[in-house]
Amino acid sequence: MSNKIPRDNGNDYSEEIIAQRQRFLEEKSGARLNHTANYSFDPASMDGNCEHLFGVAQVPIGVAGPLLVNGEHAQGEFYVPMATIEGTLIASYNRGMRVIRESGGVTTTVCGEAMQRAPCFVFRNSREARDFSLWLAEHFEQIKAQAESTTSVGRLLEIEQYVFHNFVNARFNYSTGDAAGQNMTGRATYVACEWISAQYPALRHYLLSSNFDTEKKTSYVNSLGTRGRRVTAELTIPREVLTDLLRITPEQMAYGYGISMLSSYIAGSSSNAAHPVNGLAALYIATGQDAACIGEAAQSTVYQYVTRKGDLHFSITLPGLVMATYGGGTGLATQRECLELMDCYGQGKAYKLLEIAAGMVVAGELSLSAATRRDKESGRNEWVDAHENLGRNR
Amino acid sequence: MSNKIPRDNGNDYSEEIIAQRQRFLEEKSGARLNHTANYSFDPASMDGNCEHLFGVAQVPIGVAGPLLVNGEHAQGEFYVPMATIEGTLIASYNRGMRVIRESGGVTTTVCGEAMQRAPCFVFRNSREARDFSLWLAEHFEQIKAQAESTTSVGRLLEIEQYVFHNFVNARFNYSTGDAAGQNMTGRATYVACEWISAQYPALRHYLLSSNFDTEKKTSYVNSLGTRGRRVTAELTIPREVLTDLLRITPEQMAYGYGISMLSSYIAGSSSNAAHPVNGLAALYIATGQDAACIGEAAQSTVYQYVTRKGDLHFSITLPGLVMATYGGGTGLATQRECLELMDCYGQGKAYKLLEIAAGMVVAGELSLSAATRRDKESGRNEWVDAHENLGRNR
Amino acid sequence: MSNKIPRDNGNDYSEEIIAQRQRFLEEKSGARLNHTANYSFDPASMDGNCEHLFGVAQVPIGVAGPLLVNGEHAQGEFYVPMATIEGTLIASYNRGMRVIRESGGVTTTVCGEAMQRAPCFVFRNSREARDFSLWLAEHFEQIKAQAESTTSVGRLLEIEQYVFHNFVNARFNYSTGDAAGQNMTGRATYVACEWISAQYPALRHYLLSSNFDTEKKTSYVNSLGTRGRRVTAELTIPREVLTDLLRITPEQMAYGYGISMLSSYIAGSSSNAAHPVNGLAALYIATGQDAACIGEAAQSTVYQYVTRKGDLHFSITLPGLVMATYGGGTGLATQRECLELMDCYGQGKAYKLLEIAAGMVVAGELSLSAATRRDKESGRNEWVDAHENLGRNR
Amino acid sequence: MSNKIPRDNGNDYSEEIIAQRQRFLEEKSGARLNHTANYSFDPASMDGNCEHLFGVAQVPIGVAGPLLVNGEHAQGEFYVPMATIEGTLIASYNRGMRVIRESGGVTTTVCGEAMQRAPCFVFRNSREARDFSLWLAEHFEQIKAQAESTTSVGRLLEIEQYVFHNFVNARFNYSTGDAAGQNMTGRATYVACEWISAQYPALRHYLLSSNFDTEKKTSYVNSLGTRGRRVTAELTIPREVLTDLLRITPEQMAYGYGISMLSSYIAGSSSNAAHPVNGLAALYIATGQDAACIGEAAQSTVYQYVTRKGDLHFSITLPGLVMATYGGGTGLATQRECLELMDCYGQGKAYKLLEIAAGMVVAGELSLSAATRRDKESGRNEWVDAHENLGRNR
Repeated sequence: MSNKIPRDNGNDYSEEIIAQRQRFLEEKSGARLNHTANYSFDPASMDGNCEHLFGVAQVPIGVAGPLLVNGEHAQGEFYVPMATIEGTLIASYNRGMRVIRESGGVTTTVCGEAMQRAPCFVFRNSREARDFSLWLAEHFEQIKAQAESTTSVGRLLEIEQYVFHNFVNARFNYSTGDAAGQNMTGRATYVACEWISAQYPALRHYLLSSNFDTEKKTSYVNSLGTRGRRVTAELTIPREVLTDLLRITPEQMAYGYGISMLSSYIAGSSSNAAHPVNGLAALYIATGQDAACIGEAAQSTVYQYVTRKGDLHFSITLPGLVMATYGGGTGLATQRECLELMDCYGQGKAYKLLEIAAGMVVAGELSLSAATRRDKESGRNEWVDAHENLGRNR
Repeated sequence: MSNKIPRDNGNDYSEEIIAQRQRFLEEKSGARLNHTANYSFDPASMDGNCEHLFGVAQVPIGVAGPLLVNGEHAQGEFYVPMATIEGTLIASYNRGMRVIRESGGVTTTVCGEAMQRAPCFVFRNSREARDFSLWLAEHFEQIKAQAESTTSVGRLLEIEQYVFHNFVNARFNYSTGDAAGQNMTGRATYVACEWISAQYPALRHYLLSSNFDTEKKTSYVNSLGTRGRRVTAELTIPREVLTDLLRITPEQMAYGYGISMLSSYIAGSSSNAAHPVNGLAALYIATGQDAACIGEAAQSTVYQYVTRKGDLHFSITLPGLVMATYGGGTGLATQRECLELMDCYGQGKAYKLLEIAAGMVVAGELSLSAATRRDKESGRNEWVDAHENLGRNR
Repeated sequence: MSNKIPRDNGNDYSEEIIAQRQRFLEEKSGARLNHTANYSFDPASMDGNCEHLFGVAQVPIGVAGPLLVNGEHAQGEFYVPMATIEGTLIASYNRGMRVIRESGGVTTTVCGEAMQRAPCFVFRNSREARDFSLWLAEHFEQIKAQAESTTSVGRLLEIEQYVFHNFVNARFNYSTGDAAGQNMTGRATYVACEWISAQYPALRHYLLSSNFDTEKKTSYVNSLGTRGRRVTAELTIPREVLTDLLRITPEQMAYGYGISMLSSYIAGSSSNAAHPVNGLAALYIATGQDAACIGEAAQSTVYQYVTRKGDLHFSITLPGLVMATYGGGTGLATQRECLELMDCYGQGKAYKLLEIAAGMVVAGELSLSAATRRDKESGRNEWVDAHENLGRNR
Repeated sequence: MSNKIPRDNGNDYSEEIIAQRQRFLEEKSGARLNHTANYSFDPASMDGNCEHLFGVAQVPIGVAGPLLVNGEHAQGEFYVPMATIEGTLIASYNRGMRVIRESGGVTTTVCGEAMQRAPCFVFRNSREARDFSLWLAEHFEQIKAQAESTTSVGRLLEIEQYVFHNFVNARFNYSTGDAAGQNMTGRATYVACEWISAQYPALRHYLLSSNFDTEKKTSYVNSLGTRGRRVTAELTIPREVLTDLLRITPEQMAYGYGISMLSSYIAGSSSNAAHPVNGLAALYIATGQDAACIGEAAQSTVYQYVTRKGDLHFSITLPGLVMATYGGGTGLATQRECLELMDCYGQGKAYKLLEIAAGMVVAGELSLSAATRRDKESGRNEWVDAHENLGRNR
């Protein structure tokens, strides 16, 4: 038997070719694809999302909530679908959501927006690079017109410039409506670069991407600027709520924060938070976001302190939330349903979804931070115990 | 209607309670859960993986391959299942796998192993902390015995110490067999810490985790050490293979590498690679790995150069690959099938899976790096074009 | 005897009070201050530079050169005074300067200027912080007028904003003429902040500096932006010059660069260069720069490659060069003489000095990089040997 | 006139050749070297410290103190000589030392020691590199014997290994007695590497230094490990002392710390402290330390909190203090006198000097932090005002 994966240039999403691929893989491996073959959507709808389709991963989804959000776009209670295989995760987020409700909700604010493509313009020497950087700033409006000619939604907001050696690394920052915008901004920046290339003969050549976007990675340039949207979620938790529900005092929380903040700094960690990535991964998979963005999305900072009244103020800033309510995987069958559970599918919903996501992250932070910092009156560690009881596999 | 999510303390995974939750969510949102409700496994098997279960995310899976691996554990051709919603991704990895085959395969080596929990031991002052660090080193064997008393698989390899202020941040490094081991090491370290606490009265208290593990985050401490397993994949691509299949010369590749290496350094990026995270996210979801680990798994370095014969040598080191072939989500219905496609399910298979994963990453790097660095003879940018033709949603 | 250091509020720089302090210290310690007491300047001229003066450190100065610079401000040959106690250092820089001369000189370009003070504006919550950031951008001209009212030289170029949590960290970027400008920008920003504070009642308070300037430290925010001046120095070294003078081929240099670039990245180092700090420290001390700025000044990136003709192209970008030709310590007796040796004292000379400094750095890089990467035909390591022969103290 | 710097291979430190160089430089530049020529030491003593000697930089030295240190090696009151040209600096440190005295002294602890040279061992591929890493660990004793054969003082403590790609970056960590030890460890490691090279044929070659030491730079690898010595200084400042002397409350200090800690983290700064580098630069120059090490020496972390009694606990850890009391520039005329002022010259004094240095740093931190965080009751900012009154040049 050939080792070539069966494909069909006519309709590579017909039931027939999919079945051929399943048989091919079963024969090659000796494995059986009983469950993987069980999907309920029209496979043709996967065109543009997944090549060489042969089945589905069924990822279990649970729900946490309600999450009470006091946002500018999300207001009220939301039930958050979370696709995960990690036991205790949903229970932990759910507990945090109760704390939020008892505290009057989590306040969320979208503070910035910038999806980017970062071309690198290369010159003969540094002096030419510097001179180009001045030209680039002066021609922003024309470049903007070129870039925006390719999209009805994207807007070129700014071009940040970093002049090193004989290069100019430029971050073309866009707003992208309800889409995540990686492809939209790639196309727009490409057209802009071709125009620049034609206008500026001293330009030797350019790389459309030289790792300065830093796409799907954590980086200082992303967190100092923004990648996708920058969202802050914050709340003040009354002292009694904290002690009653999480059995920890504000002072204990703040003390643990002081040490973990310093530990994160020393370790060179991309976040001083406990685990935003757990909740974000679960929400991303459930709602058809690009799972490869989970790492950059979870880059974040936590800030907390005890108020003069003795309550705990907590906030988290997520500078790289890349999420969409339109395009990409958001229209797939189960993913769209999950977005609809929060009334977040389609145009005009992206900021709402971002606020819910940031609020959800707070729930997970409160719950896990308390568990790892709590005093051990009972001689038992609740964090370990939770995994013992709920998570069987270790 | 109450806003409480329906649950059942008797059997929270019965069809009945799941149906109740589905109706509850539909009523709350007005959405319909037609597809989400379509799963083929026994929901009771989700106990320990997902609380408040109400359905599944169906994530489409395609296949790339065959991938020719010259590993110590993985040897031969493999078809790699990739669960993704990003168009062009599988096509891109597939093209890279052809380059690998034509080059004689990718060589993979597991170079290190260390899953950790990093407690922070707190003292009255720095002098006590320093004295404790000497005691800790001297009592390694006893601590090891305590830690290993909790697990038949985990082995405490080493305790790295970092003395700051009045703290000792200690990384307890374990080998964990075929499991990822986060829970196993949490339990083992907890028991060890309790023993230490009883032995060492000057210890004021400890935090079982103070963010120094740095779990599910990128960090310097993770990449300098290891988190999970450290794997290198490398190969030499003959000049003609590169120019024929990827239409780029070794010199062009190396030139682009030089610029992107520098750009990554300046940007403070967690990786100088192009996009390991895309392939890893797809493989993690398909095979039941913890998706929240994708960010730390993708932290990596690429190194490449033109050989004296004019070929291209390429290698990538992934110091934080957290993957399992046993426990966690690996036993779920579709996830297990995907592991079986590569004969990677169950005990004794973890290193094999790691080698396949690292080899797959190389395929994606070659394909995308070439696309972004290629000269534009035709006046078109192939990377943008690929997204235009294959990825519809932007 | 009292333990109070003798001082005189009338004239704390009279010979008498200085002599009192010398006797006081001699009596307290039993040491003799024979050499420290030997200065040739008028001590009253130290007012504003050094409190509780009791003597001088005599730091030996040697000279390297001539350094051939093809700058926009520095053009021709310069003899560089270097105050150092590290044997081999001047010899090494001197050797590099010969390589530069034989290569036709080093080309230098000042690519950016921004000295800053970075106040942190604190609000009740994130939403107020975000709203303020919009107001701040809209009122730039008025703020600029306030800031510039305090200085005849400084110009407020831009306010960079970073919105996190309930804060706005703002970098007020200035040009500062021939001064380094730390105090000038402190005063200007303070006045601007007081004006802002009066205009914007929702502002709870501000910190004039919250470590975001990052003054006299290395940081990503400094290298991505600029601190002081950003200067690039570059040249192409003909193959024969490299092999004749440094006994290394361009390929060996580039190979060593590839490894050390990667090593710097992995180590999280503030520079991938070999030792700019050695030359800068020596030049800073000789010319009355603030020695505490040496660390930030040495943050840098090196980029190099073999040209198609087989020569070596080398460049370095120093994004944080803080140097002055006026004010601070530049007017002190010996320091001014050293500046005058390069015709760099006084107004209108700062860019010239910066270009010489960057060119000098290149000399040191070439010399040391070659020594550490050279093949060991003779079975001896020349770098170690140099220290053996020239540096006696180890 | 030739452009060659006059030199004399017989005795390059004779008065005659020095005078020739002075005339040469004066003629080339038109400047006069009246003060630079004024040194009081025997120029022949500069052999091994400074090539092409032609004079001295006279750097003014003031004194701060007494500094009350409760160390293991430094105990009692010390007067600290500080060579600086920055007005207000000594006054600021002096004020902090009063706070320390009133608080009962600063407690200092040397917590670690490791001066290193970090060779990079290069292999054909990753598998060979990994195998070598095992061999290296097994042959530690033999390697140690080789390394120590070159020095009567240095001791090889450990070899840290970092396996990446086909490399092993190894940090050879030494104790170096009272010397800083850069040259000592270079020679020892070179001899060890030559032995390794002879024993291990699969080793293709090695670089004695590949930037992984990271010498004279800030880096994560240095702060996580140690470079030179790791020292912590700490104290508890009674509430009344803080409010009386620095006019700030413990709560205000802690609040400002929280914000500046976070700002440092976001900025990617090498330190969250205010300005250790100012004091260290002044002390380094006064006492003949290598000024090029100031940047790495100042890498540090501050930790502080309000105690239950309402006092302020403050501590700083300096993980990369590179200082000597013997060798290098410590024996120069004025530099030795400054060491003698603190009874820190010669063998057996290094730890004492390190403790004084760390204590001095605390003084500067308290003084400046209070100044920048203090409430503005009087409508004036004291930090800016201090520079206005004491520092004339801006």
